[in-house]
Amino acid sequence: MKTVGYAARSETTPLRPYDFERRELLPNDVAMEVLYCGVCHSDLHQARDDWGWSHYPLVPGHEIIGRVTAVGNEVKHYAVGDHVAVGCLVDSCQSCDQCRKGLEQLCRKMPVQTYSDTERFSCDPSTPTQGGYSKHLVVREEFVLRVPEGLDLSKAAPLLCAGITTYSPLRTWNVGPGSRVAVVGLGGLGHMAVKLATAMGADVTVLSRTRDKEVDALALGADRLLVSSDTEAMAEAASSFDLIIDTVPVKHDLNPYIPLLDVDATLVIVGQIGPLTEPSTVPLLLGRRRIAGSPIGGMAETQEMLNFCAKVGVLPDVEMIRIQDINAAFERLEKADVRYRFVIDMASLPLPDAA
Amino acid sequence: MKTVGYAARSETTPLRPYDFERRELLPNDVAMEVLYCGVCHSDLHQARDDWGWSHYPLVPGHEIIGRVTAVGNEVKHYAVGDHVAVGCLVDSCQSCDQCRKGLEQLCRKMPVQTYSDTERFSCDPSTPTQGGYSKHLVVREEFVLRVPEGLDLSKAAPLLCAGITTYSPLRTWNVGPGSRVAVVGLGGLGHMAVKLATAMGADVTVLSRTRDKEVDALALGADRLLVSSDTEAMAEAASSFDLIIDTVPVKHDLNPYIPLLDVDATLVIVGQIGPLTEPSTVPLLLGRRRIAGSPIGGMAETQEMLNFCAKVGVLPDVEMIRIQDINAAFERLEKADVRYRFVIDMASLPLPDAA
Repeated sequence: MKTVGYAARSETTPLRPYDFERRELLPNDVAMEVLYCGVCHSDLHQARDDWGWSHYPLVPGHEIIGRVTAVGNEVKHYAVGDHVAVGCLVDSCQSCDQCRKGLEQLCRKMPVQTYSDTERFSCDPSTPTQGGYSKHLVVREEFVLRVPEGLDLSKAAPLLCAGITTYSPLRTWNVGPGSRVAVVGLGGLGHMAVKLATAMGADVTVLSRTRDKEVDALALGADRLLVSSDTEAMAEAASSFDLIIDTVPVKHDLNPYIPLLDVDATLVIVGQIGPLTEPSTVPLLLGRRRIAGSPIGGMAETQEMLNFCAKVGVLPDVEMIRIQDINAAFERLEKADVRYRFVIDMASLPLPDAA
Repeated sequence: MKTVGYAARSETTPLRPYDFERRELLPNDVAMEVLYCGVCHSDLHQARDDWGWSHYPLVPGHEIIGRVTAVGNEVKHYAVGDHVAVGCLVDSCQSCDQCRKGLEQLCRKMPVQTYSDTERFSCDPSTPTQGGYSKHLVVREEFVLRVPEGLDLSKAAPLLCAGITTYSPLRTWNVGPGSRVAVVGLGGLGHMAVKLATAMGADVTVLSRTRDKEVDALALGADRLLVSSDTEAMAEAASSFDLIIDTVPVKHDLNPYIPLLDVDATLVIVGQIGPLTEPSTVPLLLGRRRIAGSPIGGMAETQEMLNFCAKVGVLPDVEMIRIQDINAAFERLEKADVRYRFVIDMASLPLPDAA
């Protein structure tokens, strides 16, 4: 099946149009036209091979909203015309203990990433996966989500990564009414963490180096902004959080934040990949505090998150762009110059020529 | 009340005899003759001011077994002649939420350390605390523990720090029959972790850089030793532990150990104070793994640990020394040349001259 996308050909080249093929439908495959695709910081990282595991040509995009165009003959839950979504994963082994628990993101054999990976379970393992900066996508049914009625299709795409990546730790660490949650970093992930924690009834604090983001933080629903360079305010806030969600995507120092955790509380990293600046064990020991990591979520939890967002009316703040503007958007993303997520209107990408 | 101990006068002087006074009994104080005192690595650290918070003269010792010699007129639970124990703490605020939960080690106002601290709650706050390398000790009743019948007095002292420091995380993280526990570092704390986890019914692995300690590890009750320099064996052991207790007392790299944790499992640091070599977030993210710290335990849990050890017959392996040999013991401790804990027979310290 012919399609077209925007691909990086190497770590130094900008994204350019790229004609490629999606696989012919397997019996449990869902084919969709991509309507919208969110622009995640990891798209930029992987286009430039910052993590060393990129395969080229590389079509990024794992925050995908689409409309079903065809289904395989064993597909049970989707029909042509349905509005669907695809996130960071397109397959997993489906048989390990984690997959059986609905934790496909923690599949023992490693789940298949939506792009820059290879098919390893359901079809020819030499097939590279390519993401949502493309006109069409074919995904096995188990990794297709339903967009609930009432969720604005043009804004929902970032829920598939920024949304679930922050929703999942909020659920894992049992955030609910009265929970004291702090959010570090107010980008794509951070602004979703604020909105979701607020919607769950938590008391939400944004931690920021300066007071510049206070108006924005409050507008997103936060109860307050705490300036992390204000030594006195930070000392007063010691031991006052049940959970800190750290969304900062670059190497940074956790030591100012750990003492803010209450006894037995957790700072969970969701944004940074790589080494952490040496954390001191002192505040860990003195409060039995914890540092954890959390990756996206499983399929069931991602559907639950979409349903929750539709029910409570939580949506990301997005700036719509055309696919032709993606390289400029990457540049702005590097400077954190977006409130808070770019979404590509894939109608801007012309259909591939018929064969 | 006159007494005598062994004190460091500065960070560079060896321990020498030191005449000093214990406070007169307050109504809820228990006075005891110290019978045995364990030698903890932190005694050495604090005698040399490695952590920067030492006060001199400094009488170390927080693994104390004694016999009650007098009680204040409001003491309810102890009588002259009782065998008692004192650990790392001698006071706390007794009124915060943590103290009320029996988590005095996590007192919001900081508990009072057995030595190198000052009394802050129960008596003149200018009074320095002095530890168990001394003939007598006076401690408020709430911080005195009962030595259960049947526990060998000459070996029990290290339970008060090495024992509770490893027992507490085993309990916090719900170790029981079938739990898969790994222990890093086979010193005073590590050997107790192995014995206690084994006694709780866990499957216990000792992690060590070489195979040298295999016989010792198995003798202590471990099911196996895993050589951390054996890349293949380490890869095979990925995701295979529910809890790793890391007892290493010096700065070290956690990165080889974190991938050994199963999903949602924890590596708990109990030995090292200070910065950790930069841990990578990758294995944290990919397995929702956690790094935590844990300090000693509360009074109720410490008593529970003593009772457990008496019931199941767990005792540390000790080497008895005279107080006059303490500086040589410190030198051997620095080289990890002890299996596994020195205990000072305080009968070796002559009584102070009568006034």
